[in-house]
Amino acid sequence: SGQFFLLSGPCAIEGEDMALRIAEHIVKVTDKLKIPYVFKGSFKKANRSRVDSFMGIGDEKALKILRKVSETFEVPTITDIHEVSDATMAAEYVDVLQIPAFLVRQTDLVVAAAHTGKVVNLKKGQFMSPESMKHAVAKVTDSGNEQVIITDRGTMFGYQDMIVDFRGVPTMKQYAPVVLDVTHSLQQPNQSSGVTGGRPALIGTMARAGIAAGVDGLFMETHFDPANAKSDGANMLPLDKLEKLLTDLTKLRSTINSLD
Amino acid sequence: SGQFFLLSGPCAIEGEDMALRIAEHIVKVTDKLKIPYVFKGSFKKANRSRVDSFMGIGDEKALKILRKVSETFEVPTITDIHEVSDATMAAEYVDVLQIPAFLVRQTDLVVAAAHTGKVVNLKKGQFMSPESMKHAVAKVTDSGNEQVIITDRGTMFGYQDMIVDFRGVPTMKQYAPVVLDVTHSLQQPNQSSGVTGGRPALIGTMARAGIAAGVDGLFMETHFDPANAKSDGANMLPLDKLEKLLTDLTKLRSTINSLD
Amino acid sequence: SGQFFLLSGPCAIEGEDMALRIAEHIVKVTDKLKIPYVFKGSFKKANRSRVDSFMGIGDEKALKILRKVSETFEVPTITDIHEVSDATMAAEYVDVLQIPAFLVRQTDLVVAAAHTGKVVNLKKGQFMSPESMKHAVAKVTDSGNEQVIITDRGTMFGYQDMIVDFRGVPTMKQYAPVVLDVTHSLQQPNQSSGVTGGRPALIGTMARAGIAAGVDGLFMETHFDPANAKSDGANMLPLDKLEKLLTDLTKLRSTINSLD
Amino acid sequence: SGQFFLLSGPCAIEGEDMALRIAEHIVKVTDKLKIPYVFKGSFKKANRSRVDSFMGIGDEKALKILRKVSETFEVPTITDIHEVSDATMAAEYVDVLQIPAFLVRQTDLVVAAAHTGKVVNLKKGQFMSPESMKHAVAKVTDSGNEQVIITDRGTMFGYQDMIVDFRGVPTMKQYAPVVLDVTHSLQQPNQSSGVTGGRPALIGTMARAGIAAGVDGLFMETHFDPANAKSDGANMLPLDKLEKLLTDLTKLRSTINSLD
Repeated sequence: SGQFFLLSGPCAIEGEDMALRIAEHIVKVTDKLKIPYVFKGSFKKANRSRVDSFMGIGDEKALKILRKVSETFEVPTITDIHEVSDATMAAEYVDVLQIPAFLVRQTDLVVAAAHTGKVVNLKKGQFMSPESMKHAVAKVTDSGNEQVIITDRGTMFGYQDMIVDFRGVPTMKQYAPVVLDVTHSLQQPNQSSGVTGGRPALIGTMARAGIAAGVDGLFMETHFDPANAKSDGANMLPLDKLEKLLTDLTKLRSTINSLD
Repeated sequence: SGQFFLLSGPCAIEGEDMALRIAEHIVKVTDKLKIPYVFKGSFKKANRSRVDSFMGIGDEKALKILRKVSETFEVPTITDIHEVSDATMAAEYVDVLQIPAFLVRQTDLVVAAAHTGKVVNLKKGQFMSPESMKHAVAKVTDSGNEQVIITDRGTMFGYQDMIVDFRGVPTMKQYAPVVLDVTHSLQQPNQSSGVTGGRPALIGTMARAGIAAGVDGLFMETHFDPANAKSDGANMLPLDKLEKLLTDLTKLRSTINSLD
Repeated sequence: SGQFFLLSGPCAIEGEDMALRIAEHIVKVTDKLKIPYVFKGSFKKANRSRVDSFMGIGDEKALKILRKVSETFEVPTITDIHEVSDATMAAEYVDVLQIPAFLVRQTDLVVAAAHTGKVVNLKKGQFMSPESMKHAVAKVTDSGNEQVIITDRGTMFGYQDMIVDFRGVPTMKQYAPVVLDVTHSLQQPNQSSGVTGGRPALIGTMARAGIAAGVDGLFMETHFDPANAKSDGANMLPLDKLEKLLTDLTKLRSTINSLD
Repeated sequence: SGQFFLLSGPCAIEGEDMALRIAEHIVKVTDKLKIPYVFKGSFKKANRSRVDSFMGIGDEKALKILRKVSETFEVPTITDIHEVSDATMAAEYVDVLQIPAFLVRQTDLVVAAAHTGKVVNLKKGQFMSPESMKHAVAKVTDSGNEQVIITDRGTMFGYQDMIVDFRGVPTMKQYAPVVLDVTHSLQQPNQSSGVTGGRPALIGTMARAGIAAGVDGLFMETHFDPANAKSDGANMLPLDKLEKLLTDLTKLRSTINSLD
């Protein structure tokens, strides 16, 4: 239909109630707007800055909640994996396996994800060029899996800032469908506190620019109470702002589609 | 009317015929699309990479051509200045004085431009943050001139590349109207040849992202024969592609205006 | 004694003969110069740019060669690990476990390495600030292991270049002994070929600057035939240039020691 | 003799007493250490972040103080120029004309400096690659002046930080003698206050790394009371620390000279 798709949900699966509550809201909004939707939730936070950061409620417990979300609302789900052994485990519960940006150069991990036959979402490393994602995509397709997407979550700019290079959208669309990870791209890493910062006031600006630049999908983390989320609270979208944002983006997409 | 405005023309005034020919074409297109238009042309190229690069046809000769364009088509004009003494000289011929990005920290130059009473267009230095443009704008307004605009032409990213930080648009709009310099932002400087490169295939992507991010105006250099232009041929828009591009951007702007 | 220490060897263990040949040469040189030496070799190359790049001769086979080098020349050895399960496996064969730069944010991996009781060498991520390594070091020491070192292998600068920030040396020495990875810091990643480039002619310059800036150790990959090495041939030091280089650096270190 | 040379003095000429007092101290130290010395002082601060920053005591007044320093202590002097007309004016008073980093692409200014016959010190733009300085040097030599030196004052790294790329030293030495501007390279620009910050605690580390990397000269701003200096107080070396620092660097240089 030419509509963009949406990967969205909380950063981490903190429990069943919060996952269902967030999913229910997003499903309602995306159904209304006819936006293809995939529920996102991490079963484990494996790469936090500090050793005392929240890492999860238990792998299997969280994966079962992802399955429950999927069954309850009839939506596909996505989660990120960090070791080869995660691939087959997570593939039993979700529809899309995501390779985190820091890990996208790990050949074994990418190939293991590809071999599950699930869709593979490769996050562009903060240290990689758009052009270099061609080789990452090839690790999936050369493993016999053509279902691969690329998500851009920004590129390092100095030590404590990230920037989105929109020139990369047309480049990476040559290799696979391209998603803009709006909320993570607004992070500000390496803060002295050991807690990553963010600029959530810019979510609308970045999402609009992404749609205008031609992305196929958007990735946005959301929570009904970002300030009390167990991770990434600094850059998530408050859940109650989602509908207005997506409504606007749908209109923008429609105009963009009419131009080409 | 909520329409964006356009600063456009050739990089350098190479002669009267080419200036009039380019202006005529752009005036026709922008009249049709109701886009407020300012004709742009440099009377001198003062900061070329190499000493043997083209620097101009003569200052006064070029400035007179700018005035002729203005009188012929009843459009305002803009040119860039490089020394304090250029300010009063250029102000006799044009409506907008532009401070080049490399020179935007030169207090004397900015203040001299401000004192002419003309509109001052401050290019954001490739080495400056959006936030730091607040101080550059203040150099104009503290000199008693409230007519100031900011143009973003990209930020250094490594030695041989530039990137546009669209987060800067809402930031800089707090200080002054913001223009995206689409064509220069696609430059790739510091090439070993001593001639700056570019990626003109991305002009449409960048212009769309700029409009979506909320810029007030666009800056685009154009030429009927970029390959034979005397400067910046690597990134100018071919003149015959301007109408389709602006038509698309006008539609996009209309949608963006409807959202807020 | 105030001497710097050296981590050196081939990028990958390509076979027993080459490993012993390289170790023998370096041991002879470092014995002569009284430089504490640790033999380095990867048992697996897990994060190559392309799926068709060389990844190793077999994990256990390579680890046994590392043990043989250790027993033959009575030197400690270091290798890099990529998954939690690698930690205990590799710890049976080597003395120092290295966390690759891309993986230094993976808490599980760092903690698993710490729990082996071996020395842990944390490579600073190309996307991390010197200050942020404080939290990475804490993941080791909070796990009850005080034997941790930090190795700087450069920081991303644009898409295709890396730069060493020598300001980071005094900063990181507050957290742990600091090593400069001379050869990897001269890499040029994200080349269009999918093969990382390098600037080996600058090895001497960088090593000297590192010693002058106060590093505790140096990391340098070397091979008797870089052009035919199975990985990182673009930036390794030819083995026959090692003695002259280390002799010079020893003199420099002696002067530096005399200043403080 | 193989000794490095020194460009040093206050950031700005604030008055005759302070200039003579600083010069006297440095001359005494450099005479003792046999370091060729050039007194540095700006007669005007033309590119401050804010319009209300100190800009100078008057051009001619400051230039006369530079001449007085030169005559009193029999040392050459250096000052920076910002417009073409400054070149001949300043050339009457000083021995070396410096082109500021922001202005090094201004062909007219560089050529005007070259035509005075004075030594020209080109500061590498914070936005320029080492390789691109080849073209800047050619603007001087093609104007018939072979007396040109290059000074590196760091390169932009993100918006609020600078980094020195020591790989550039051997590169730029192919074009001209290379100086490391130690104190400015430790600046942190674009701070929200509109006042550039700095990290003076790292002066020793950077100067040592520079000597080790093979620079021909050092540039260091100094003041007997940095906290009360009228500009750049955030990164100047306190004058009473100069002798120890230069003594150490002389020993280091001697060792470096012995290696090649």
